[in-house]
Amino acid sequence: MIGFLDSGFGGLTVMKEYLKKYPEYDYIYLGDQANAPYGPHSTERINGLVLKNVEFLIEKGCKMIIIACNTASADALRVVQQKYKGKPTILGVLVPAVEETLQKTRFGNIGVIGTRGTIKSNAYARELEKYSVLYTPTEKRANEKIKVYQQACPLLVPLVEEGMIKDTVSRMMLKKYLRPLKHAHVDALILGCTHYPLLQKEIERIMGKNCTVISSAKAAADAIGDYFRNHPDVEKQLSRKGGRTYYTTDCPERFSNLGSKFLGQKIEGIKVDV
Amino acid sequence: MIGFLDSGFGGLTVMKEYLKKYPEYDYIYLGDQANAPYGPHSTERINGLVLKNVEFLIEKGCKMIIIACNTASADALRVVQQKYKGKPTILGVLVPAVEETLQKTRFGNIGVIGTRGTIKSNAYARELEKYSVLYTPTEKRANEKIKVYQQACPLLVPLVEEGMIKDTVSRMMLKKYLRPLKHAHVDALILGCTHYPLLQKEIERIMGKNCTVISSAKAAADAIGDYFRNHPDVEKQLSRKGGRTYYTTDCPERFSNLGSKFLGQKIEGIKVDV
Repeated sequence: MIGFLDSGFGGLTVMKEYLKKYPEYDYIYLGDQANAPYGPHSTERINGLVLKNVEFLIEKGCKMIIIACNTASADALRVVQQKYKGKPTILGVLVPAVEETLQKTRFGNIGVIGTRGTIKSNAYARELEKYSVLYTPTEKRANEKIKVYQQACPLLVPLVEEGMIKDTVSRMMLKKYLRPLKHAHVDALILGCTHYPLLQKEIERIMGKNCTVISSAKAAADAIGDYFRNHPDVEKQLSRKGGRTYYTTDCPERFSNLGSKFLGQKIEGIKVDV
Repeated sequence: MIGFLDSGFGGLTVMKEYLKKYPEYDYIYLGDQANAPYGPHSTERINGLVLKNVEFLIEKGCKMIIIACNTASADALRVVQQKYKGKPTILGVLVPAVEETLQKTRFGNIGVIGTRGTIKSNAYARELEKYSVLYTPTEKRANEKIKVYQQACPLLVPLVEEGMIKDTVSRMMLKKYLRPLKHAHVDALILGCTHYPLLQKEIERIMGKNCTVISSAKAAADAIGDYFRNHPDVEKQLSRKGGRTYYTTDCPERFSNLGSKFLGQKIEGIKVDV
């Protein structure tokens, strides 16, 4: 069983990418709707929530857990990885996006957008720095290092959740948030929040042809093939009956209505567990 | 001691009005920032949070508690009032606004704006109906009943919290949300959320001269004088040393920065309590 953990239904954009590539596995999704959004919470509180929710997924039999929330990945991944020491495997969504970005950027000007929590944690900038050896500068710029430009976009989550994806207001806010990144000539932009893939087309339009937009959701699913090849022992433990189970800690109706948009298919039989 | 309970710092707009009128009392404010916003939570979850937080304020010695959050007042006020049976006195912010509105409306066309939680609870409409005897229709319309038009405005809280009070985007969203209420010719509009007083001027401008805008924060403070006159025993129990204590359950920095704007004065010495 593969478990997904998110603060709400946003992580369903990550699960959607997994289901496309690996439909055969059994999946369980836990949306911590009762404590959503994680964005404005303190690191301590996020760590506590993630620990509790990871325990829930382990009890349900998950042999692999994906922390699908960027804010939670940024803050709590290391804490839970250290606690469980590989049993089960716990992965986040930051590193795959970081690796893909470093391979795709041409000039090393990298933009990151996310919630206040994700940006404040500085986790993307830290990981980009850590893996920066993956960036191959052009000969002319051989000695140049990567430059990271971060931008918190706190209004995008509520706008997406209100279904205002093609609304003038969303376009105005996107232009406002992306202006400094365009100005800095970023040529690769990480969508560091599970909600942003729903705005990806508009973001690409605003950023223009010279900027590659990387969805952390898609990057996470793309990276898992390599992970399975390198860890066949983990892959072997995963059950393959194509099962899907959805849990939410509050508001199942809202989870179902909005979640179905994020997953791209109707969600039925949601279970509530506190 | 008078206690204020809110999901975050929004309730400080209510406390601000109290401090203006009754600076002599001791006040304690509890912002449940760890579980903010209450708007999207289920009724069961809100009831549980309010019960826990009321207990905290009682332990701190509060003889009177104001549930300053509209969502919490709408959902949980009756539950805690029934549990504590007047010891201590627990008041909400809905009824004062409802009473003032029914006295001020000329034609009985009443608008209510609030979070999804407040509007979905239907609490304002229910209370307006319950107290509708307070409305005196003009002779011509003697047999006409009040009509209530409700509108959820989920983006206003994040816009205010981002400090985008005078921004074009806020104006656009306000126009969008208020359009159906203008169309219905409401002549009294209740600001049914603690954040909205910060947008009151713009709301009044959009609604025009023929509509009275009632702030639930101000109405609650205005009503307390009458309450004290009718319940001198309660008033006598309140300590009067002009003390102010602020508690938050998470993110004291954010509470201090944003809260100071809501209170209209700097907040210092915030205590964190989970």
